[in-house]
This record gives sequence, structure tokens and C-alpha cells, in this order.
Amino acid sequence: MNTTHIRAAIVGSTGYGGVELIRLLQSHPYVSVTSVISSSAAGAPIAEGFPHLTEIRTDLLDGVDVELIRGKADVVFLATPHGVSMKLAPEFLAAGLKVIDLSGDYRLKDGEAYRKWYKHEPAAKADVDSAVYGLAEVYGEQVSKTNFVSNPGCFTTTSLLGLYPAVKAGWIDPDSIIIDAKSGVSGAGRGLSLGNHYSEINENFKAYKVNNHQHTPEIEQVLSEAAGRPVVTTFTPHLVPMTRGIMATMYATMTEKRGTEQFMELYRQFYEGRRFVRIRPLGQLPATKEVTGTNYCDIGFSADERTGRITIISVTDNLVKGAAGQAIQNLNLTMGWDESLGLAFTPVYP
Amino acid sequence: MNTTHIRAAIVGSTGYGGVELIRLLQSHPYVSVTSVISSSAAGAPIAEGFPHLTEIRTDLLDGVDVELIRGKADVVFLATPHGVSMKLAPEFLAAGLKVIDLSGDYRLKDGEAYRKWYKHEPAAKADVDSAVYGLAEVYGEQVSKTNFVSNPGCFTTTSLLGLYPAVKAGWIDPDSIIIDAKSGVSGAGRGLSLGNHYSEINENFKAYKVNNHQHTPEIEQVLSEAAGRPVVTTFTPHLVPMTRGIMATMYATMTEKRGTEQFMELYRQFYEGRRFVRIRPLGQLPATKEVTGTNYCDIGFSADERTGRITIISVTDNLVKGAAGQAIQNLNLTMGWDESLGLAFTPVYP
Amino acid sequence: MNTTHIRAAIVGSTGYGGVELIRLLQSHPYVSVTSVISSSAAGAPIAEGFPHLTEIRTDLLDGVDVELIRGKADVVFLATPHGVSMKLAPEFLAAGLKVIDLSGDYRLKDGEAYRKWYKHEPAAKADVDSAVYGLAEVYGEQVSKTNFVSNPGCFTTTSLLGLYPAVKAGWIDPDSIIIDAKSGVSGAGRGLSLGNHYSEINENFKAYKVNNHQHTPEIEQVLSEAAGRPVVTTFTPHLVPMTRGIMATMYATMTEKRGTEQFMELYRQFYEGRRFVRIRPLGQLPATKEVTGTNYCDIGFSADERTGRITIISVTDNLVKGAAGQAIQNLNLTMGWDESLGLAFTPVYP
Amino acid sequence: MNTTHIRAAIVGSTGYGGVELIRLLQSHPYVSVTSVISSSAAGAPIAEGFPHLTEIRTDLLDGVDVELIRGKADVVFLATPHGVSMKLAPEFLAAGLKVIDLSGDYRLKDGEAYRKWYKHEPAAKADVDSAVYGLAEVYGEQVSKTNFVSNPGCFTTTSLLGLYPAVKAGWIDPDSIIIDAKSGVSGAGRGLSLGNHYSEINENFKAYKVNNHQHTPEIEQVLSEAAGRPVVTTFTPHLVPMTRGIMATMYATMTEKRGTEQFMELYRQFYEGRRFVRIRPLGQLPATKEVTGTNYCDIGFSADERTGRITIISVTDNLVKGAAGQAIQNLNLTMGWDESLGLAFTPVYP
Repeated sequence: MNTTHIRAAIVGSTGYGGVELIRLLQSHPYVSVTSVISSSAAGAPIAEGFPHLTEIRTDLLDGVDVELIRGKADVVFLATPHGVSMKLAPEFLAAGLKVIDLSGDYRLKDGEAYRKWYKHEPAAKADVDSAVYGLAEVYGEQVSKTNFVSNPGCFTTTSLLGLYPAVKAGWIDPDSIIIDAKSGVSGAGRGLSLGNHYSEINENFKAYKVNNHQHTPEIEQVLSEAAGRPVVTTFTPHLVPMTRGIMATMYATMTEKRGTEQFMELYRQFYEGRRFVRIRPLGQLPATKEVTGTNYCDIGFSADERTGRITIISVTDNLVKGAAGQAIQNLNLTMGWDESLGLAFTPVYP
Repeated sequence: MNTTHIRAAIVGSTGYGGVELIRLLQSHPYVSVTSVISSSAAGAPIAEGFPHLTEIRTDLLDGVDVELIRGKADVVFLATPHGVSMKLAPEFLAAGLKVIDLSGDYRLKDGEAYRKWYKHEPAAKADVDSAVYGLAEVYGEQVSKTNFVSNPGCFTTTSLLGLYPAVKAGWIDPDSIIIDAKSGVSGAGRGLSLGNHYSEINENFKAYKVNNHQHTPEIEQVLSEAAGRPVVTTFTPHLVPMTRGIMATMYATMTEKRGTEQFMELYRQFYEGRRFVRIRPLGQLPATKEVTGTNYCDIGFSADERTGRITIISVTDNLVKGAAGQAIQNLNLTMGWDESLGLAFTPVYP
Repeated sequence: MNTTHIRAAIVGSTGYGGVELIRLLQSHPYVSVTSVISSSAAGAPIAEGFPHLTEIRTDLLDGVDVELIRGKADVVFLATPHGVSMKLAPEFLAAGLKVIDLSGDYRLKDGEAYRKWYKHEPAAKADVDSAVYGLAEVYGEQVSKTNFVSNPGCFTTTSLLGLYPAVKAGWIDPDSIIIDAKSGVSGAGRGLSLGNHYSEINENFKAYKVNNHQHTPEIEQVLSEAAGRPVVTTFTPHLVPMTRGIMATMYATMTEKRGTEQFMELYRQFYEGRRFVRIRPLGQLPATKEVTGTNYCDIGFSADERTGRITIISVTDNLVKGAAGQAIQNLNLTMGWDESLGLAFTPVYP
Repeated sequence: MNTTHIRAAIVGSTGYGGVELIRLLQSHPYVSVTSVISSSAAGAPIAEGFPHLTEIRTDLLDGVDVELIRGKADVVFLATPHGVSMKLAPEFLAAGLKVIDLSGDYRLKDGEAYRKWYKHEPAAKADVDSAVYGLAEVYGEQVSKTNFVSNPGCFTTTSLLGLYPAVKAGWIDPDSIIIDAKSGVSGAGRGLSLGNHYSEINENFKAYKVNNHQHTPEIEQVLSEAAGRPVVTTFTPHLVPMTRGIMATMYATMTEKRGTEQFMELYRQFYEGRRFVRIRPLGQLPATKEVTGTNYCDIGFSADERTGRITIISVTDNLVKGAAGQAIQNLNLTMGWDESLGLAFTPVYP
């Protein structure tokens, strides 16, 4: 593999995660997308289903053919649903490709948890064990040494970057954590459902999968690692009538009295040198639009003396830092490149 | 006062609360709006600033003239900012009119709390003491005996209807309550600010006044009454890119292990006979659009055995149950009418 | 049939047109909805698919059973797709019910035109001939004498109310007419398609069925009647990222030099006594939100001396005046009631 | 001036046009933004008013000081309101800087027309004469030879790229042209007004400045040049409840019978080699979202045999091709660089 020019294949190119990978990689200096793959639309021009790619991508969609792809690509991104990734990843790995999996299939180390929350049989234990969980700013060291990355969920990334340093430092009580999360609708993908039908969602705000969302055990797995003991958490996702963006508003009881600025300082140190986490100044809390189109995760704090609780607000673009962007960041890490290579976008505002 | 036909004046008719009062009262069988009042636009046709009222209201705006209004009206709705209501209410009361105040001026019984959260001198203590706090489904008995109602805030109404029965019953720990609230933009009124500028809010989601919103002490005042002891609470408002609707997602630790259906039953009993609170069936949580244009407050529950917490979700239309609708409901109560008179709207869906 | 209390059945109650009929009829003083009908969801509670109807409609959906319905209803509204209405209408008429059909099946008097634009065989000619085209403000006289109304399309109603008086008066050249129309997404119904998928429509504006929309011949049929000779027209529908509302921006060459006020006066006279058409004052053009939730059609004008053209802007709520509202208005006319009975709503603003 | 590294100043950096210039230039390989300028907020960090720029731009806003700027920059972009540019441009030109003006001050060659449509005294005639009108795909040749570019309006660019080739070729009757345009709200800028207030615009669609918009004479000036004789046009702008994007739906009578594909071919030839104009395939019409965040102008056609008219639909991102993007494209042309340098973005979709 040439280390300043690699070839990438994207499986699931007709979903929002896949098409966002195409957008971002289009301007990556060291990566060329040589195969865009769709099991359902193989043979069709990619621009037919996505006219915004007219004259940008003129190639046809490939089918899922491991032999074909091994000849065209060095790395494969799996932007496939859970249950599908676990079939493809082992084949691509066996064929000698790097694999970055964006599904939930390799995130949970505990097969029982996978079975319970995904209502599906888990992937082979050996494969699960070999996958590195790619929360880049926390586990970047491990990511840099692997060929197989399990890319975190969008809610998970947004929540954990906001919680990890405080839990690790013992500054908040892990058992008190409540995560109230809000996502734009693109997080639900391009598949049709009444829940994504325009007139049902527009001018509407709703919660879903309350106490029941599959990102819960993923969050708990990392928080437990940080806390050094098992942690359970309340996590509530909501749907916001907008396309992109996630906010996690997080509440926890402080273990001792501390101020907002102390938390800011803790996080600044923890994320030092990591371009994509921006700690907001005192009194400023991030809004989702302020990271649109980028790989940033912006975090703000408000410690409340009255209640003894800290409120932590974290935002990302769910399709970038929450999916395709972090996947590329992880590829960069596995290649030994600067993690921000090809990802230095300025937010699209307004 | 004729008890099946009364005349109403609306002060602040050029704001969203005022114009919603006009909409709702337009079809009230026993109330006629005889004076629409605006200090800033007196003399102009109301339909000039609100063309949707063309041919519906052809009258001119009156100025704030107590003598004039006492001759034209039996009840006055104050859809005025805080600080203004405290000047007008005593005059109208002295003139013998019923007063329904939609501002925050008479909600907090504790003058110090008002001073702290509103950053303004409180109204005269005697007036504050005489005002009845109009959370209709909780304090309807008191409301039915007064001529001076202090109408609750929109966040407050939505949150309290979802929390009161459980706190009163001792089923949740009051100290553990966290309220994560989300409001459509109309809640911020018609006054111009960068925070309400279309391109800044659209496709954006943000928190504001975190640990600092003036509805916090109002919520705490009622929760403290319910708990029988002082309660402090974490309350976070967010702005949703939509016009109408509020959701409060509320978290609390259960005092003993109970299931979702037990909570549903508790609330069904508490609100028995009260048309505007709808307890949703098991497994169904309300979305804001499902109450748009109406005085409903819909509530759903999810008890979580894993964490020992209950999640309570409550939604209203902020301009109706959160403002103008509850104000009319309170008028109905003070008149001895059915509380739903003139308010039996079906939600506008989609 | 009791003339101050009739019973209505709604076929197609799980679509947006059907559920809007339910909303509006809920407050009609002389009509009770006694049967809500759905071929696909018969037996289920209507509130299951439409939770906003919780406690408002507790009945179960009926199947399409003419015998059953004839025993329960005096009038049947067909909120069914084209091709379906033509099967049901003759049966209900034969059973002695009044029929108000909201589909396109009986709108075009010319079977060939139906075949060409709907790509479907037309209904039986005798049935088509017997249906009265229910553009209420134009053909109200005929509507008042029939038991079988073909309710106009949403684009058609909005466009024709803005054009008819000027064409009839010979003030504009019928061959020069261009209709640029914009609709909220609810016009496309509740059926799932990528074209109605939230993330595809939100923050997007697009044209569709350009020179190819089936409301074109319906518009031309009425304009030809007004002009006294065959007229062809350019009609372009667009989709606006909002739920409700239609605007038609219409352009035509004036046959002689006239000013905006002359047009206003012509229309005022034409629509005299018709509550639901509001001619806007000089310099004011209607916006869609100003009629939301109501049966109004608001019209504004701008004559341009430079180009010799008149611009006419007409707005409606596509689900009310463009569908369910006008259907009820037509029922009122057939019953000899005031056409606005049960429809005197104030727009929901903002 | 170093021809592969130039320094840029942006006047009006706190408006949407200015901040979009910052976003786009951030990734331009040959241009550094060395001064961001605001008369109203000089001295403040740019990221204070635009938190999305946190850690991306850490500099303070400069005041409007020609001496200062001449020392820091080679080119100045004027993202200033009309009336302001005409004061600044001559000074910067005299100081030896390249000037790209985004306002309307130098677009109209006819001072009388400026006076009439802008209701303001025109700039000095010599300056107006020396400015090159930067419709890049039409007048690129002239742009490449100047130091003073007058950047076209957003509606103008979108409309003219869709009309110019057909008018020039004599395929459509210039007197028959009608332009029905729709813009996202960001086109109205960041200044506060009730017309941009969220709750007024959201879920609303409205026309404005009908027969009265200042882009009309700008469009007519270019169409007249193309036609070789004076042309007047009907132009109607509308506001769409979305942030970015413009569509112009344009109607004209064909001078002889031609099909859609002939028009496509004419335009393909006219725009050959120009990357930013994309002619859509037969049967496909562009939607605004398909160019979001980019400098593309996408064009589609539908010739209608029935009416003898052609419908041309053209879309741009109003802040990019309609403002900041074309300004940079013009800078590229004046520098002799590839016109797409630094502008090769893939649309942000969804």
C-alpha cells in the first residue's frame, strides 16, 4: 500500500452515510474512491439516485463482489446496516483490506448485550475482539495500530466526548448521568418510513426508543471503562425537525463542588492537540448549526451550585463526526497521517 | 355581568399571545372581544399588522386607557411583558374588571425570588398575594373563586402537569428531578432579535438560559407545595426549529419500584374529568404536533427497571395550553362555566 | 334526511384529506361523522394511526361496505385516490346517499383528457356528466341542486379563483396565462415515497411534473368555459419545504391598460357575498400562512405598466379550501345551508 | 503581487456574504484572508459573533481603514450594502488594490435606472464605466483583464445563466420572458426585520417586491445585450422557508418549434469547458439542495409543444454562486488562475 495514495471502496453508497463518505473523500489529498458499491442498485450511475453528484462522480455502482473490490481498493468502508457488516467484514479482512465498519456490529464487546439491544445474533466473538472501537479522541492510540475499526454511533460519539474526561477524572457520579439527546432526521437514513415522512416530522418534535435505544449499551461500555466499574445510564433520543446535527444535553451530580471553568480546563487538557474537539468559552454553549458539514465536536458547560449538578452540552454533525468524518479520521490514524487530513472544513453557516 | 355573555379586552394584541387570544375567543360562545389594545400601535387596524385577520377583525387598536376599557369590557387579558402587567393589573382590578395576567409578574409568591430571576423589582406584595396561580388542573378550585388569575408560564404548565401527581403521591424523589424542555420559536414572541432571526434558528438546535431561566423558580414553587418541603430542580430550555409546541422530557428516581402502567393509572385518577389532560396508552409517547392549535396537555411514561428512573414526557402547544388557551380556561373557571367552553378544538394535523 | 342534522361517512379516513374532514366536521353544528372508513386499516381504532385524535374519536375504522354505510350515513365523502372513487361513487349514489368526491375521477368532462393525463380509463360517461364540478364560488348555483359533487383539485381551486373573473371579463388574454404554483408537502398525501422523505425535501425547493401535471386540463376546462373558447395554459407545480399551503403566482397580458385597483374592484364585485374569498388591499399580497387551517382563498394583484402584464397571487390551505374545507362548503350548498357553516375558523397564526 | 499567493481583505465580514467568503477562502490554495473588516464590530474577535469560526479564525475585526488594509492585502472584497460600496471602491482602487464588489452599486451602467430602482444617487459614472460586470460564464473574457469587478446579484446570476444562450441564439422571444424566482431566507442578510423573524417565515411562502425588485433592471441590461435591443421582463421574487438556495423558473415563447434536447445541446455548447454550469439530463430538473454549499448553477429544460413555450429551471446556492463563490471565481479569472481554484466543493447532501 502506497502510504500517500490509497484507494477506497464504499459499500452502501446509496445511503446517507455512504454518500457523505463520497463527499468528504472527494477532497482528501491521499485517498481516491475507486469503487462505490450498492447491492440494490449495482450497474446504475451513482449520480442517478444522487443528482447532486452529476459530473462529480460519473461511475456506475459496483455490486458487492469481494474479488472485484480487492483488485480496486486498499480500504473498504462499510456503510451498511447492522447484520450486513458482520457478513462482509471478515471477507474483506481475509482479502487483505483495511476495514472501517460504520455499523453497530462490532461495537459491543459483550455478545449478550448485542443480542438484547439489537435483537439479532452477534458477530463471531474473535472478530468482535479484534475490532478496535474508533472513538478517535479517546482510543486513537489503539486505532493507529489496527486494520479493523468499528466506528462509533452518532449519539455515542456526541455523548461520550462530552462525558469521558469528567468520568475518568472522577468529577461526576457515573450513576447519576442522564443523557437527553436530540438528532436531525438524516440520522434515520434514507429508508422510507412513516416516521421519516415529511409531513409527520416537520413542525413536530418527538422522543423515540425511550429507555430502549441500541446506543445505550455502547455508551455504558465506554463509561464503565472510564469509571472502572459497571455503569448504567438513562439515554433518551429525540427527533428534531432538521436534517443534520446532534445535541446531547447531559446531566450529572458533581462529586465535589467545582465551577464551570474547572471543567473547561479539565477538558482542554484532556483534548489537547486534538483539533476536532472545541471547548467553548465560559458562558457560551454550542448549537448544532455551528458544526454543520464538519468533523467538530463542540462542548460547553454549566455547573450549577444550587443543585450540585453539571450540565454538559455536546454537538456534532451526525453524518460527519457521528459517522463518515470520524471514519475518515480513523483511516487517517491507521495510516499514521495527521488525523485531520482531508477533514479541515469550515462549518457551513448559516 | 351577564353570565352567558361577557365582553373581553386584550392588552398586548400585537404579540403572539394576544393574537392567539383573539383567534381562540373568536369562536367562544359566551365571550366577545370588544377591545384589542396595543400601546405601540393604537389607532391602526389590527389587520394591518396581522393580515390573517382581514375581514375577521376590522376594528382599530385601542390605546391603554383604563377608563375607556372599563366601559367596554368585563374582563381584561394582560398579554403584556413582565414589568408592564404589574402596572396595569391593579388599575383594572380597581376599576372592577376581572384580570387574567399572562406575564410572570404575579406567579412567584416570593418577592426575593422574583427579584433574583427576573432582575426587576417585584409587584406589590398584597397584589401578589391576592393573585391565584392558574394551573387549571391543579388549582382549579381556587381559580373558580377569584377575579385575578396569574396564568402560568408555558414551560411551567407543560412540566408541572407531568410532575405534580407523582410528586404529590411521593412516588418520585423531588430532589432527583431533571427537566429537559424544548420549545418552538413562537415562545420567544414577536420582538426582533438575532436569536429569532430565521437563518440563525432554522436547521439549528440550541439550549439557552441554562440553569438560569425564570420559569425555574415557578416550577420549584409548585413542586415544593406538592412535596411539602423546599425543592430545587434542574431545568434546561432548548429552542427547536419549529413555530409551535413544547415538550418537557422529565427524569426522576422512583421512590420504590413501580411500572409504567402504575404511573399511568395514578395520573388517570388525578386528572379524572379534566378534558385537557390526555394520558397516552402504554408504549405511546406524545409528540408536539399531536396537540397543535389546542389546549391539550398529553403525557406519556416509561419506567426503567435498569436505572430505577421514570421518564415522563409532556407536550403542549405553547401558545394555547401554555398561554392563551389556559387563560381562557381560567376565565371559564372563574365564570363557573365548563372549563372547555370555546376550547374544544381538534388538533391541526399534519 | 333531517335538514339540520345529517350523518356523514368518510372513506379514506387514514389519508390527510380524510383526517382533515374529521377535524373540520368535528365542530360542524349540523353534521355528525358516524363512520370513518379505511379499506387498509378496518377494525383498528382511528386514533391508533392518528394519536392526535386520542379521546376525540374513539371509534374503530369501518371497512368499505356500502350496505353498512347506507344504514349509518346520509352523505359520503370520498377521500380516495383516483381510480377508486369511480368504483365507489356509483354504488353510494345508487344506495341513495349524497356523494362528495375529492378525487380527480369526475372532474374532467372529456374522457380522452382523463385518459391522457391520468393514464387510466375514465369513469362511465353518464356518471361524469351527472357530477357537478364544485368550484363553490363559481358554480355554487349548480352545486346547490345536486347530490353528486366532484370537488376540485387544490392547485385548480387556488388558480381558478384567481383567474376566473379576469378571463370572464375579457381583461386578460387567456392564451398568455402562465401559472407558477407552489405547494406544501401535505398535498402529496401520507403515502411513502423518496419524494416525501424528510431529509430529501427539507431545505430543498423543487419543481415536479413540469408541463405534465393532471390539474392542467382541469384548469383549462374552466378557463375555456370562461373564455368561451378552448384555452391551453402553462402550469408548473413546485414543492415547498412546509406542510400546508398553496400559492399560485399567475401572469397574463392585459387586453387593455388597467391598474391594480381596477382588478381589485372587478374581483370584489365578482365575489361579493362570498365569505371565503378575501381580496387584499392595494399593495398587500397574501402569504400562505395567512390562511392556514381555514377555508379562505386570499387574492392580491399587481398590474405592471412596463410589461403590460398583471400578476395575480392567490393562496389557500391545500387541505382546507383545496380539499376538505371546500368539500364541506359544497355539502353546505347542497343542503341549502349557509356555505360557511362549520367553517368559520380563524387562521392559525403564527 | 505574488501570483500564487495573494492576501485578501473582506469588508462586511459580519454579514452572510462576508462570512461565506471566509468559509470558502479558508481552503483556497493561493489566497490568505489577512484582514476581516467590520465598521460596526471593529476590535471584537470575529468568532464572537460567529461561534462556528471558533479556533478557525482567532483574529480581531479590523475597522475600515484604507491605509491599514493596503498594507495587509492585495485584493479587497466589498460585502457591503449598496451606497457603501460606492464610497469604498474608489479609495481601494486608488490605493492599488484589486476590488471585487458584491453590492449593486456598479452593476447598472445606466445611472437613471440605478436611481429609479435603488432610490439612491448612483456612483460616479467613470467608476461605473470602469467596473466589469462579473457574470463569469458570460463575461469571463472581460473579467480576466480588469482589477475591478462588479459581482452580479444572486437572482440575476441564477436567471441569466438560464436565459442567456437561448436569447443570444434567438430561440426564444425576449419580450415573452417571465421569471418566477424563489430564494432561501439567507438572501435577505443578517439584519433584523419582521420579514426575517423566524415565526413569520417558517411554514410560510410569500412573494415580495413584485414588479419592483432591483435585480430587474440588472437582468434586463444583460438580456438586452444578448437580444441586441431593449428588453423588459417580468420578474417575481418569493421567499422560501429554507436558509440557502435559489430557483428561477423561467417561461418564454419559442421562436420556432424545438424540443427539449435541442435546448440542452445549445446550452452544453455554450457552457463547454465551464465547470460550474451543469446541464441536467433529459427529464431531470434541478432542485436547490443539489447545489448547496457549492458554486454550481444547474439548469434543466422542458419544451412544451402544446403551448409553444419552453420552461427553463436554474438553481444556485445564493451565498455561493449567487455571491461569495462567484466573487472568488472572478478573482481567479482576474489572476489568470483556473476559475474553479479553491471552489471544487461537493454539494452538502442531504
